[in-house]
Order: sequence, then C-alpha cells, then structure tokens
Amino acid sequence: MDITVAIDAMGGDHGPHVTIPAALNAIKQDSQLNVILVGLKDVIDAELAAHQAVIGPRLRIHHASEVVAMDESPQSALKNKKDSSMRVAINLVKSGEANACISAGNTGALMATARFVLKTLPGIDRPAIAGILPTQKGTVHMLDLGANADCTPEHLLQFAIMGAMLVSCVEQKERPSVGLLNIGSEDIKGNEVVKQAGELLRASHLNFYGNIEGNDIYKGTTDVVVCDGFVGNVALKTSEGLAQMVNRFLVQEFKRSWLTKLMALVSIPVLKAFKRRLDPRRYNGASFLGLRGIVVKSHGGADSLAFQYAIRAAAEESRSGVLSRITEQLEIEHLKPQAALQDVETTKEGI
Amino acid sequence: MDITVAIDAMGGDHGPHVTIPAALNAIKQDSQLNVILVGLKDVIDAELAAHQAVIGPRLRIHHASEVVAMDESPQSALKNKKDSSMRVAINLVKSGEANACISAGNTGALMATARFVLKTLPGIDRPAIAGILPTQKGTVHMLDLGANADCTPEHLLQFAIMGAMLVSCVEQKERPSVGLLNIGSEDIKGNEVVKQAGELLRASHLNFYGNIEGNDIYKGTTDVVVCDGFVGNVALKTSEGLAQMVNRFLVQEFKRSWLTKLMALVSIPVLKAFKRRLDPRRYNGASFLGLRGIVVKSHGGADSLAFQYAIRAAAEESRSGVLSRITEQLEIEHLKPQAALQDVETTKEGI
Repeated sequence: MDITVAIDAMGGDHGPHVTIPAALNAIKQDSQLNVILVGLKDVIDAELAAHQAVIGPRLRIHHASEVVAMDESPQSALKNKKDSSMRVAINLVKSGEANACISAGNTGALMATARFVLKTLPGIDRPAIAGILPTQKGTVHMLDLGANADCTPEHLLQFAIMGAMLVSCVEQKERPSVGLLNIGSEDIKGNEVVKQAGELLRASHLNFYGNIEGNDIYKGTTDVVVCDGFVGNVALKTSEGLAQMVNRFLVQEFKRSWLTKLMALVSIPVLKAFKRRLDPRRYNGASFLGLRGIVVKSHGGADSLAFQYAIRAAAEESRSGVLSRITEQLEIEHLKPQAALQDVETTKEGI
Repeated sequence: MDITVAIDAMGGDHGPHVTIPAALNAIKQDSQLNVILVGLKDVIDAELAAHQAVIGPRLRIHHASEVVAMDESPQSALKNKKDSSMRVAINLVKSGEANACISAGNTGALMATARFVLKTLPGIDRPAIAGILPTQKGTVHMLDLGANADCTPEHLLQFAIMGAMLVSCVEQKERPSVGLLNIGSEDIKGNEVVKQAGELLRASHLNFYGNIEGNDIYKGTTDVVVCDGFVGNVALKTSEGLAQMVNRFLVQEFKRSWLTKLMALVSIPVLKAFKRRLDPRRYNGASFLGLRGIVVKSHGGADSLAFQYAIRAAAEESRSGVLSRITEQLEIEHLKPQAALQDVETTKEGI
C-alpha cells in the first residue's frame, strides 16, 4: 500500500543532518513509501546534494519558512510560527497530501499544533502519547507517556481503547490484553482515579487484564499498559536513567584494569548482542493517538537509524487503519463524541 | 552507642530461617547491638539450636503467640492479631524496651499496626515509606514508596522534611538537596498537586533543588527524591522489572552457545563486580518515617544477607537521632501538629 509521510526535516537536536539521511534510507527500504521533506528549501537542497540524492515523485520538498525551537513554548509556536516546518507537515496530513507526519521537534509544540490543526477523534477528549518498550516476551505499548499530567477515569478508558486498537491494527492481535498500571493487583488498590478507571475498564468490551504493577511492564504481562501521563512519563524516564546507569556500571567494570579490558575484548560479540536488545533506537517513534490524523514523535536526540525506525512506525500506523478502528471501538463503548463539539468551539475562537 | 532492635522473627517469605541467622550475624558484626527475637518461642528456640546459638543479654526472645499472614488484610491484622510477632515487636518500641523494630512481613499490616500503636509525630499527617536506591554518584533516599496513593501538597512537604532530616542524620550531610519528582524541570510542569507542592517547597527552609525527572533518580541529581506513594511505587517496581529483564538478557546472551559460555567464564570477575553494584540486597530496609518510633521494613523475599542490611539500617537510624531532628524541622517550618490531635481521637475510638 502506497503511503506518503511528511517529515519535519528541521526538527530535533540535529535537524536535516539526521532527518534527511534517515528519509533516504527509509524510501530505499520500503518501495511503497514516499516522503515529503518539509522545511527551509535551501537547507534541504544542500543536505540532499551532500547525499547525491535527487528529488522525484517519491521524494519531494515542501518549503516552510520557519522553525520551532526545541525550547519554544507551545503557545508561542502556535501563535507565531504558522509557517513552521512542524506545522506545515501537520497541515499536509490535514489536507490529505500526506498519510502521516513525523517530527523530532519540541514535544509540547508538536502536540499543541497537532491538536489545533487536526482536532481529536469524536469521543476522544485528549490525545495521548503511546510508545513501545521492550519486554521479556517481546514488546509492550504504553500510554500516556506525558501528554496529560492530570487525568480522569474516562480519559484512562479512552487511552485503553486507543492503545488496544493500535496494537490490534499494527501487530495483528485480535484482542490485545490491557493492563491498568497500579500499585497492587487487588481491585481496591491505588488512587481514586485509577480505582474508578478499573471499574470502567471492567465494564468495557476490551480484553481487560486488570491491575498490573511497575514490574509487569518489562515482564510483558499485557500487550498494552495504561496510565496517566505523569506516571507514564516518570516510569519511562526512570527506566532511561536506570538503563544509563547499568550501562555505565558495566563499562566501568570492564575498564577497571588491563585484565578486565582483555575480558571485554573477548566478550565483545556478547556485549554487542546484549546492547542491541536494549537499544532504545529500535523503539523510537511515539504515536500521538486520538487525533484525526497520524502524528509520530521521534526522540529529539535521535540519530539517523533511530529516526528511520520512527519513519517506519509512521508508515506502519498509516497502513494499519487504526483511526477508523478507534472510532468504531468508541462507538461500541458508547462514548459520546464530546471532543468533536469542543473542537468546533476551539476553531471558532481561533488562535 | 548501645542499641536494641526488636525483630519480628516470623515475618517474610522465609520467617525464622532468614531472620535468625541474619540477627546472629548482625550482633557479631556490631558489638553495640542487642536484639530481641519476637515470635513463637518454640520455633525460635529450634532455629537458634540449629545455629548453636544461646540466648543472653545481647540476644533475647520475646514470645508472641500469633503470626500475621503475608496476604492478610491490615484491618484483620489490627483487629484479630493483637499478639502477633509484628505487633509485639512494635509494642517493644512503644514501651521503650527496643530502640527500633524490623519486620519482613506484610507491608500494609505493618504500616497500619505501627501507625496505630506508635502514632505519628506532631505535625505529620501520614507516615511515608523511604527507601535507598543506588545512583551513578552514590545513593539516593526516595519517599513515598507506596504508603500513600493520594497525597496533598502538604503531605509532599512533610515527606520532604522527613527525607531531608533522615539523610542529614544518617549520612551526616548538613543540608541535603531535595528534588520533587515531576515530568519537566520548569515550575509550571506537572499535575496540580505537584505544582502546589513545588510552591510549598520553595517557601520552606529546606535545600530545595527544584523539579527533577525520572532519569535524575539514578543520575543522583539530588540526595532526596520526593513523590506521592503511587508514583514512587511505580518508579520502584518499574526499576525492579527493568533490572530483572536486563539481567536476564545478559544471562541469555552469555548462554547462547559454547563460545559465549566460554566468554562468560572468562568474564566472571567483571560480571560479579557488576552484579554486586546493583545487588538490591545491599539497599534492603525501608524506613517508615513519621512515626513516634523507628520501624524498618525488609523486603518480604529477603535472604539472610539482605535482612542483615535491613537490621543495620534500623540500628543506624536509631543512633542517628532522626526523630527529634524531624520534630525540630517541623517546628522551623511552622507546621501545626494536626496529627497529634487526630491521634488522640483515634486512641479514644480504639480498635
């Protein structure tokens, strides 16, 4: 299935130096993928020339005159950067010229702009950030990873529906299991929001596993892990911190003396295989779920390989038909399309 | 300084088989430590005999006829097990016969019983569970790890005071830095409770570092990490799960073939040193802070070495004078002793 992905070529810590080689590799590997590079035409041209790449039907440029800074506030990006590479890439999804867009830029600005331009799906109050993590059994999809610090039980139910439909579509799992992140397995455990969310999930048509605890994430107990954006972000960042520390301790121990350095040399193949299994680049590309279009966020510090994984995630999501599956499931769950009404009002206000 | 620690000999997954050898080793290593083994006298006698240990002034037995089950509800333990080894150990702290008590039993029951018997310190609404984690720079003390799923900003301030005073007393740090676990470093980040807690902390006399993120825990950015019990528990359990997965991947890669097994054999000294640095047994022993007495909780699955570390933590905390330091600091922060009033009423009601 032919897919076009709009790439915010300017986003991320390294901008076109990372996004453009990644895009070139991605279209080489996926013959049914077309990309539109969005950003400052001169800069993109120069980077393409450096890679001896030429534009054509599968590789186009769409000029955008502005760039959202990595530390710019979402409000400023929305008000002052109407021709930013980020916003124009999202506009291409809105107009139907692209099936998905991807950016390694400022998360807050990307979420605010995507929400403003695309609006949420009917029945979804707030989009959530869904990411993939490795587990002992394979992978797990977890949401929300930081878009919504304060959530109601209804939000958590909506996240569960979106996450389950994503896994169902992208991984072809008929009825993916959904775990509710909590601090104990019994129904009475947790804070008030989580307890009520548990009741809503038990009453839903989803394959609800029940409460899970933090260690279940990496055990791979369920296919989907649902939590509010505060807890999800802390769990994700804590994991990043622990992984960095573990890696550093391993390097320190192997570098302790000439003897241990020799041991490291001997063990290189194993250490490389081990490192590969935990390589965060393979899991790069978080979905902004709940919007009327596909938006994928790459890690800001992504290198070319990591950004390529995120492009692949955007293409897979586009082909999966996840948006209509979410809408269908929301109808099954009889959720009222409140968001649709809210969006109309937001549009009236303008920004 | 002579210290007496009351040990719930029956608690934990392995009971006296772990607690008693650990106690015997602990008094060997610390000549100013005395222990009271609390539990079923016959069982304790048999275990002591198996280790050819004899009772004396430094090693006493205090009979308790009941045992709280690992899955028993806190309410049931409070109402029906008034002569449990756990409760009697706490009673010995209340009466002054012991300076601290320690249990590897059911966390909920231990917290409920400790709170009922000992009461909270004036100015403390709720006790919190404080644990130690390894970091790239040393160690960090983090609280709450699961006692309070729903917290107010005032609770988080109280946790910060307790955590800072613990580190100040136990690690002799004059003004330990306190980080507030959040999802961004800016003051406006986070959920409502955390934003307000940030304001209280900025106005306090503590050495408040500001907001920190999940990865700062293991970076060792601050000496103390403050969060609610829901977030703290998720962060801790997520870390446990990730550490297990990393360990399993490393073992799997080294066991893949006879060649990689050979590499493992060569690297044994490094792998052992690496494992030791992350060994959770070395960080066993979480403090129930905020009570009018010292209560330390060991991991339920602790082995003898891990339980010994928890006994050492209880002894260190007893010698540190942390309770009076917390009380002093609460007075400096002008917190009203609400808890003291509440306790009087709880006592009147009885259980």
